[in-house]
Amino acid sequence: MKILIDALGSDKGAKEIIKGTIKAMKEVEFTPILLGEEKVLAPLLEGEAIEIIEASEVIENNEEPTLAVRRKKNSSIVVGSRLLKEDLADGMFSCGSTGGLLASGLFIVGRLKGVDRASISIALPNPKGHSLVMDVGANMDSKPEMLLQFAYMGSVYLELMEERERPKVALLNVGIEEGKGNFLTKEAYKLLKSSDLNFIGNIEARDLFKGEADVIITDGFSGNVSLKTIEATVKFISEELREALMSSFKSKIGALLIKDELKNMMKKLDYRAVGGAPLLGLKKPLFKGHGSSDSLAVYNGILRLIDFIEKDVIEKLEERLSEVEDAR
Amino acid sequence: MKILIDALGSDKGAKEIIKGTIKAMKEVEFTPILLGEEKVLAPLLEGEAIEIIEASEVIENNEEPTLAVRRKKNSSIVVGSRLLKEDLADGMFSCGSTGGLLASGLFIVGRLKGVDRASISIALPNPKGHSLVMDVGANMDSKPEMLLQFAYMGSVYLELMEERERPKVALLNVGIEEGKGNFLTKEAYKLLKSSDLNFIGNIEARDLFKGEADVIITDGFSGNVSLKTIEATVKFISEELREALMSSFKSKIGALLIKDELKNMMKKLDYRAVGGAPLLGLKKPLFKGHGSSDSLAVYNGILRLIDFIEKDVIEKLEERLSEVEDAR
Repeated sequence: MKILIDALGSDKGAKEIIKGTIKAMKEVEFTPILLGEEKVLAPLLEGEAIEIIEASEVIENNEEPTLAVRRKKNSSIVVGSRLLKEDLADGMFSCGSTGGLLASGLFIVGRLKGVDRASISIALPNPKGHSLVMDVGANMDSKPEMLLQFAYMGSVYLELMEERERPKVALLNVGIEEGKGNFLTKEAYKLLKSSDLNFIGNIEARDLFKGEADVIITDGFSGNVSLKTIEATVKFISEELREALMSSFKSKIGALLIKDELKNMMKKLDYRAVGGAPLLGLKKPLFKGHGSSDSLAVYNGILRLIDFIEKDVIEKLEERLSEVEDAR
Repeated sequence: MKILIDALGSDKGAKEIIKGTIKAMKEVEFTPILLGEEKVLAPLLEGEAIEIIEASEVIENNEEPTLAVRRKKNSSIVVGSRLLKEDLADGMFSCGSTGGLLASGLFIVGRLKGVDRASISIALPNPKGHSLVMDVGANMDSKPEMLLQFAYMGSVYLELMEERERPKVALLNVGIEEGKGNFLTKEAYKLLKSSDLNFIGNIEARDLFKGEADVIITDGFSGNVSLKTIEATVKFISEELREALMSSFKSKIGALLIKDELKNMMKKLDYRAVGGAPLLGLKKPLFKGHGSSDSLAVYNGILRLIDFIEKDVIEKLEERLSEVEDAR
């Protein structure tokens, strides 16, 4: 199995990417192919014989993705997407620009039949494990049908990857009652309700961490706002907590005693630690790692991608979507 | 000054509302008028001579607001709105159904000229103080022009109520660059940019607590999702923290030492403590308190409402909006 690994575009540099790759090689059998500049990457290989395919450009986060993909033919993302399309590799892992990956995925790799847009998900922790939240930023002006497709993608993904039977699907909304929400959620509710999915109704953002749903469906705008609000709140609380703990001699002693527990807790809250999420809806496996992934996150992401490929998630999603299409 | 106080519709019952009212009476001069059932409220008055106007129905949170306002003529919210409209009182404070208050505000009290919809705001804490976030749930399918109106409302409110000069206005979006976002935010950006407001551009949800903006503008759907995501995250962290602190003997000792600091911190995070927010865009002062307000929150809310009335916020907002209209 050939896995393309984008050595560019990560905040922490190529070193962490390569470290994570080597760690994964020791765990499972696969052939990594690094995308980047040979002269930069070769010295970092720690003696491992890893193929490098030349790619010198990086699509930055602040670039207009569609334009960037068209212009930067030699970017790691575009080079990798081409190789995927031509069946010269089985999957790609990248910590680069989400927009760039999506644009490249849509225009070069291509969409699955029955899918209007690809979607990005995150695994949100809860006391029982985690929920899959999607879309968290791939699509800005979503249509109700797209939200239904996201629900199918998420369900099939969890069924296969985590052996959850008939995953519970909920719609992120401003109230739990049917008929609540904006035009999009009202219409999406109807579609979800009349589908063969295990739809459990609306969920309010205040219940995001309750673990009541396996898949939480939202449009990319609200999903992104919600996700980044979690980030903001965690950061604000951490800072306030630090200040509170340093405010007196007594609290400083207390802080010393709870240091390890606090660290573990903050780790649990870090959804980025999961290490990578698929761009669901594309014809080929394409995983996106967080921009600030360390070697452990890269390792986790690659292992997840390999699992995704071995479980034929894309083929099975395609089958499921065509069954749904036929049943209409 | 006559202030209508809705004694119904609060999760904690009429007792906390009345306690808060009496506390406020000892602080500032005003004439409270309680809305509710005399036989229930009279025994709770602690010997104070407070007028009670009969209202026996409650608009519940799960009712369709417009229908409820039409049907429940004897609800505290509808009775109060009528009195406001007829100039028999100067303002109203209620912890009842937000939807009911909005519907009643729009259909009975009426909108200001130049305003398409009323808006609900919250005061979001940050290290420097707080930002006003609006709309947080009044309007589901907002139009760009409505977001511009929210920005004027928020700016005038902060100028008058908190003496902030030319409040900085930001637009909640998925990226900071111009051109990011969905149709609504892209169009609203253009309107804000060409207005005479102190518009500082987009703000991402991850920067919500940075205190960079005085007013953060968003549509009611995303605003509501963001607000409730904060609630969810605070709750999740509190629970995880509690568990972490109880996990060992050492951490239990630590927890004892930091108890007070933790309590203070959580208090700071509770945006509900502010005690009430105006429904901006209506012809009369109508303040909404959180459904679970205690007597302190009610007290704070009433004081804020009185301040709002004394500062003629509505008249000045109307002037400002008509200047904007004329300048077009």
